[in-house]
Amino acid sequence: MTLSHPWQAARRTAFWAALVIPMAMAVGSVVALFLWALEAATRTRFDQPWLIWLMPVAGFAMVWAYGRFGGRAGGGNDLILDEIHRPGAGVPLRMAPFILIATVVTHLVGGSAGREGTAVQIGGALAGGMGRRMRLDADTTRLLLMAGVAAGFGAVFGTPLAGAIFALEVLAIGRIRHDALLPAMLAALVGDWTVIAWGVPHVHYQISFIPTDPAGWFGVDILLYAKIAVAGVIFGLVARAFADASHRAQRFWGRYVPYAPLRPVLASLILIALVWALDTRAYLGLGVWSADPGDPSLVTFFQGHVDYVSWFWKFVFTVITLSAGFKGGEVTPLFFIGAGLGVALGSLMGVPPDLMAAVGFVAVFAGATNTPLACIVMGVELFGATHAVPMAIGCVLAYAASGHGSIYGAQRIGVPKT
Amino acid sequence: MTLSHPWQAARRTAFWAALVIPMAMAVGSVVALFLWALEAATRTRFDQPWLIWLMPVAGFAMVWAYGRFGGRAGGGNDLILDEIHRPGAGVPLRMAPFILIATVVTHLVGGSAGREGTAVQIGGALAGGMGRRMRLDADTTRLLLMAGVAAGFGAVFGTPLAGAIFALEVLAIGRIRHDALLPAMLAALVGDWTVIAWGVPHVHYQISFIPTDPAGWFGVDILLYAKIAVAGVIFGLVARAFADASHRAQRFWGRYVPYAPLRPVLASLILIALVWALDTRAYLGLGVWSADPGDPSLVTFFQGHVDYVSWFWKFVFTVITLSAGFKGGEVTPLFFIGAGLGVALGSLMGVPPDLMAAVGFVAVFAGATNTPLACIVMGVELFGATHAVPMAIGCVLAYAASGHGSIYGAQRIGVPKT
Repeated sequence: MTLSHPWQAARRTAFWAALVIPMAMAVGSVVALFLWALEAATRTRFDQPWLIWLMPVAGFAMVWAYGRFGGRAGGGNDLILDEIHRPGAGVPLRMAPFILIATVVTHLVGGSAGREGTAVQIGGALAGGMGRRMRLDADTTRLLLMAGVAAGFGAVFGTPLAGAIFALEVLAIGRIRHDALLPAMLAALVGDWTVIAWGVPHVHYQISFIPTDPAGWFGVDILLYAKIAVAGVIFGLVARAFADASHRAQRFWGRYVPYAPLRPVLASLILIALVWALDTRAYLGLGVWSADPGDPSLVTFFQGHVDYVSWFWKFVFTVITLSAGFKGGEVTPLFFIGAGLGVALGSLMGVPPDLMAAVGFVAVFAGATNTPLACIVMGVELFGATHAVPMAIGCVLAYAASGHGSIYGAQRIGVPKT
Repeated sequence: MTLSHPWQAARRTAFWAALVIPMAMAVGSVVALFLWALEAATRTRFDQPWLIWLMPVAGFAMVWAYGRFGGRAGGGNDLILDEIHRPGAGVPLRMAPFILIATVVTHLVGGSAGREGTAVQIGGALAGGMGRRMRLDADTTRLLLMAGVAAGFGAVFGTPLAGAIFALEVLAIGRIRHDALLPAMLAALVGDWTVIAWGVPHVHYQISFIPTDPAGWFGVDILLYAKIAVAGVIFGLVARAFADASHRAQRFWGRYVPYAPLRPVLASLILIALVWALDTRAYLGLGVWSADPGDPSLVTFFQGHVDYVSWFWKFVFTVITLSAGFKGGEVTPLFFIGAGLGVALGSLMGVPPDLMAAVGFVAVFAGATNTPLACIVMGVELFGATHAVPMAIGCVLAYAASGHGSIYGAQRIGVPKT
């Protein structure tokens, strides 16, 4: 359709508003429920340490139930990306309750996982279900699915602009198409507002470092930016390693443990052994905050906590958890890995650790998902505009250094990195 | 080239750094000279009101000199976009001095024009000249030209992130390709830092309105956002009208005044008559600030100045000036038109005028150039992250409503708007 007449644009906007607003309100409401349940599960796990012993049982039940009743819901994020690329049988509605419950259970028993995958699948499932119910054509369904992804992502992190851009940018490496911009932006905003309206809060981070104009450098702190550029490349290599390790671990389980429900049982035993060996539970769960204020966590990384190993252990715990079949996203663990590596690098390189934590927070994510523009915008939404330039340097270099690997197997290569 | 090995990414980054940093420092330095000269020309025009009478002479000389000595330099922004799309004879180096001098002269005698076109052409000319001198291959030249555009844009407005994204987004409607992301980001940052290092300041704008959480709306001021959405559509329609009017006016001159140097003479007479009829010089020049503090200008729109007609007259003055052959950009006048229309709409709709001025500032530009993501980021760079959501709503709806028209004739349609 060409927009030969101004009213056509207005009609088209009204059409998308009628379609997207109810969908995004539904997605936002389910995401609000999810965030509330996740918080409850995390608190319960802190209060009841014995729950970790249920990890093998919960993992077995989860993977068994997905295999028995989940149908194509087990396809997860990749199924949604595939359906956007080439519409097939659609995204099943049951994906939403399955992923919501499985993720909450994963966190209740201490799996190391995130939440963006869950939110994206809630968004995709509700949008896909709506598209089938309304018998929308393939092209409209495709855009509606992207809007569902945007709504889920924007709602779960409280970052609607990043959610909208993420939905456009995640489909193919190196390319953004604007055709879903309007529905995605509308969906992400309405999704976020719905979570706010339900009264579910997001964690706020603060960078205490305030940049000053160093007189000796003509008003620009080139040395600081050069250090951040070097760190950006490191963030990208770690992101690449994470994507590689995830795929390798999945292949390992597939080859050596053919009976899928057994995989999380074995993974649980490894994780429990690691908890015992390291004598810390800091790498279980989401990692946003911890019952023990001495633990590394996303919150404490911005409060002066510095160590050199927690990013590595979070990497290991998360790869083991998710590759074995536990459910949840990768992104919050990637935030942890990036922020943890950031405080370590900042401390080593003489950069304020909380600034470098913020750069790592978005840059590792940018490298692992190949969504640098969404991550720059997310950095601004989370940390404000003051530090937009260091975050942009980090995201672009991490993207450049991370190669064509991706945590999303269904992500295509649009324009190869050069 | 596939990035099979991590070191390849690091080598590639070093390659681009070696190529882009000197180019962007040169572009930033010339842009700093340009900004200094522009300020001097504007002050001189305020001090010497009789200079306006030289407008016909200056216009004649300018267009004559371009025709006689400019060669392909007269192709301007469109030539650069064409060369990026399909490398041809290259962007001539002389484009830089030609556009710099012609733009400063245009502002000295009171033409209503901007500066982004000038900065983009300085960037494109220096990048193109460097590419030829170094015998770079076509693909590297293409990316270097995009980096040149980014350097010019980022430097002239002090908005490096927007400059980088603009260079990726402006080539084709509805599409971004990330292949130039790294060189463009590096170029825009170095260009901006070079202007800072030369001590040339940018004007700062401030939105005094602070959003509060309205209790009655579940914590989200839906009514405010709905009003901004309506305004966004209006901004898009005005942007479309501006692009249409510019092309129509160019065709008019081409048909009825075949001798090109005569066109600015006639345009000057119309502009001088309008100055006399309206009894104001507020619509001459850049419009960022004015010698008369009662005048509408970008600065006063953020200081409480409200009127309902200045956006329209700036529109008329700018279309007449640029279509006739005077030189400069369209973007700063588009900022004026957007901010002026913004205070008018804000005042009519019960939205804080300075907030709506900021939305219009970026949204009309987004609609006229089809670069919504660059404009959202620019809004954050200029006005901070606090008002990112209203600016995003304005930019996306202006983009959706502006159709496939563009102030850049060489902009292609990548993914049609739906």
